[in-house]
Amino acid sequence: MNNFVFQNPTKLIFGKGQIARLSKELPKDKKILVTFGGGSVKRNGVYEQVAKALEGFDYLEFWGIEPNPKVETLRKAVELCKSEGVEFIVAVGGGSTLDGTKLIAAAAKVECDAWELVKNPSLYGGTLPFASVMTLPATGSEMNRGAVISNLSTGEKYSFYNTYPVFSILDPEATFSLPDFQVACGLADTFVHVMEQYLTIPDCSPLMDRWAEGIVQTIVEVAPKALSPERDYDTMATFMLSATMGLNGFVAMGVPQDWATHMIGHEITALTGTTHGQTLVMVLPGVMNVLREQKGAKIVQFGERVWGIKEGSTDERIDCTIEATEQFFRSLGLATRLSELSIGEDVVEEIVRRFKERGTLLGENANVDYRLVEQILRQRL
Amino acid sequence: MNNFVFQNPTKLIFGKGQIARLSKELPKDKKILVTFGGGSVKRNGVYEQVAKALEGFDYLEFWGIEPNPKVETLRKAVELCKSEGVEFIVAVGGGSTLDGTKLIAAAAKVECDAWELVKNPSLYGGTLPFASVMTLPATGSEMNRGAVISNLSTGEKYSFYNTYPVFSILDPEATFSLPDFQVACGLADTFVHVMEQYLTIPDCSPLMDRWAEGIVQTIVEVAPKALSPERDYDTMATFMLSATMGLNGFVAMGVPQDWATHMIGHEITALTGTTHGQTLVMVLPGVMNVLREQKGAKIVQFGERVWGIKEGSTDERIDCTIEATEQFFRSLGLATRLSELSIGEDVVEEIVRRFKERGTLLGENANVDYRLVEQILRQRL
Repeated sequence: MNNFVFQNPTKLIFGKGQIARLSKELPKDKKILVTFGGGSVKRNGVYEQVAKALEGFDYLEFWGIEPNPKVETLRKAVELCKSEGVEFIVAVGGGSTLDGTKLIAAAAKVECDAWELVKNPSLYGGTLPFASVMTLPATGSEMNRGAVISNLSTGEKYSFYNTYPVFSILDPEATFSLPDFQVACGLADTFVHVMEQYLTIPDCSPLMDRWAEGIVQTIVEVAPKALSPERDYDTMATFMLSATMGLNGFVAMGVPQDWATHMIGHEITALTGTTHGQTLVMVLPGVMNVLREQKGAKIVQFGERVWGIKEGSTDERIDCTIEATEQFFRSLGLATRLSELSIGEDVVEEIVRRFKERGTLLGENANVDYRLVEQILRQRL
Repeated sequence: MNNFVFQNPTKLIFGKGQIARLSKELPKDKKILVTFGGGSVKRNGVYEQVAKALEGFDYLEFWGIEPNPKVETLRKAVELCKSEGVEFIVAVGGGSTLDGTKLIAAAAKVECDAWELVKNPSLYGGTLPFASVMTLPATGSEMNRGAVISNLSTGEKYSFYNTYPVFSILDPEATFSLPDFQVACGLADTFVHVMEQYLTIPDCSPLMDRWAEGIVQTIVEVAPKALSPERDYDTMATFMLSATMGLNGFVAMGVPQDWATHMIGHEITALTGTTHGQTLVMVLPGVMNVLREQKGAKIVQFGERVWGIKEGSTDERIDCTIEATEQFFRSLGLATRLSELSIGEDVVEEIVRRFKERGTLLGENANVDYRLVEQILRQRL
C-alpha cells in the first residue's frame, strides 16, 4: 500500500426534502451568488425550492453555465463577483455548474484572467467559499476539489483544482426528470471514475479494491432501473450516492491512479463537443485492450468479481472482461465506437498530434505516450 | 435509503515513517499534552519517533491511560490541562488512549467533573483540539467522535462523544510488535463494528452493503497473516485501514444501525474486565440467533456474499452463516462462549438487571429489551 494523506471536509446533506436546509447552511450575513446551468432546474422544481430557502438572504443569480463549462462564460460571473462584492457562491445544477463555480470562486480572488489560472495553478490565491445543490449524479464534483474547464476559442479542456465545497445538498428526487442520455452518461462516468482508481497495479490495497468493485457492482445493478420509465427513489438515491463516492478520494487511499481514459476523453470532448461520459465508454475498452499486459492481473480480478468470469486462459478472461464491460456500456444506450458518432481519423490525428506536442505520458506507470494513445483510439474507430 | 448528513473532517496521515510528520501537523505556538497508555510505545520505537518529532515544542507527557480508560485516571490529566494551560492534546497509543483523551479534552473546558460530563452530554462546553498517533487497529476512534469511558468505582462503562480528531497518524509498522491477542481482538472489533451498521434492515443502501461486506471480506482475508509470526507491512496496513474505515461513518450513510452487541459487550467488560473485542464475539452469534427472524434477510445476504453459503432453506442458511461467523472468531484464537472465560449466570443476571432497571431498548428497531438480552446471553453461556 502506498503512503497517503486523506482529508475531505465537505458536509454531505443527502435525501428527500433536503434542499430546504440551504437556509440553515448558508451564511446569513454574506452576499451570495447562486450559479445555474441552462434552466432545467426551473422545470424540475429545484429552482422553486432554492428560491424559497433563500428568502431573506442577500443574493444574486448567474445563469447559463453550459455543459463542459466555458471560461468565456465563467469570466462574466467572475466580473459579477468582483463588482458586487460576492462572498459565498452556491452552485445549483450538475457537475458542470459546480465545476464552473469552482473556477469562478478562485478567479474572483486574483487579478489574472481565469484561463491563466487554469493553465498556471501557481497563480492560485485562495477562493470564495462555495457549496452546491447537485441535480445530476455523475462527476463527483460535489465532494472533491476538481473541475474541468473548457476554452472555446482554443478548443482546449483542462483540469483545475480548488478547495472542497463547504457543503453539498443531494436530493435524489431532483434526478427524476433527467433525460435518459444524461443518466446513462452519469452511470458511465461513475463507472469509469472508479476504474481509473482501480484498474492499475494489483494487491496495492485489498480494501480499496473491494470498495471500488462495490461501486461498480452497484452501478451495474441499478442501471436498468435508473433507465426505466419509472424511476424510483431508492434506485436514484443509490445511483447518486455511488456517483459521489466514486470520486471523493474514498476509493483512492493508498492506490496508484490511471486517468488515461479521462485525458483522452477530454480531448474528444474539446474537439467534438461529445458528452464526457459518452467519450469515456468509447475509450476505456481500448485502454484495457492495449494495456492488457500491464493491467492483466487487475482486469482478470475485475472480470471475476464483477462479471463472474472465472474460466479460460488469462487472455480469454481478459477478452471476456473487456467484452462484458463494453456490453454493459451498450446496455446504457451509449455508443462504444467513435464511428457511431461520426468521429473519424482526423480527430484521432489531432489528438495524437496534441499529445505528441505536449509530450504527455499518461497512466499509472506514466508510459502511455502519443503512440499508445494512437493505438487505443484507432482500435475504437 | 434514509436521509443522512455526513461530515468527517479528520486528516488521515497513513503509512511508513509518517510519525515524523507530527512536527508539521502540531501547532508550533501552543502548549501540548501528549497522552500515553502503559508503555508499549517505549518498546516498539513509537515513543522515540514521537519524542524526536516533538523537539522544540512546548509539551508535557501524561502516562498511564489504561485499557477501557477509567475516569479516575483521566481526571488527573484534566487537572494537568487546567493547571498547565494545555491548548492541544495528542494521544499516542491505541483506541483506549485516544478515547480517554477525548474525554480529557472536553473535561478540560468545563467546571464539572469528568464523569458528570459522560453521564450528561448537555454539560458539554467545547473541547481542546486533539489528534492521535494510533498504534493499534481496532476501535476506529482515530477518525470518529466516539469514546467509551469506564468508571471503576461504579463498574459502569458508557459512550461519550466529542468532536473529531484534527488529524490521526497511522504507521502500520507500529503494529508489528502487538501481542496476537490484541490483534485478534482488533480484527474482531472491526468485524463487529461493521456488522452493527450492516446486519439490520435489507435493501436500505446497496452500496453501503457492498462496502460493509468489503471490509469484512478483507478482515477475513488478512486475519491469518496478521496472526502469523511473520507480519508483513501490507497485511498490517490493510488491517489498519479496515479498522479505521469500519467506524468513521463511511459505511453508515443512509442505513439504520444496531449496536446491541456492543451495548451488551460493554456490560460484560464493565463487570468482568474482559477485553472489548473478546466480549463482542461471544455476544454476536447470540444476537444473530435470537433475532434470526428480524435480521434473516440480511443474515442470508451476508452468508452468501461473505461465506459463500448459497444453498439450503432460509433457516439452514442462517444457521450456517452464524456457524461460519463463530468459526471465524474461533480461528482468531478467541473464546466464543462466556463459560470459556468463567463468566457465569451471576454476571448474566446482573447485566439483565441493569437493562431492566434502565429500561433500555437496544437494536435497529429498539425492540431488544432485557428479556431478549437474557435470551441472547443464556445462549452464549
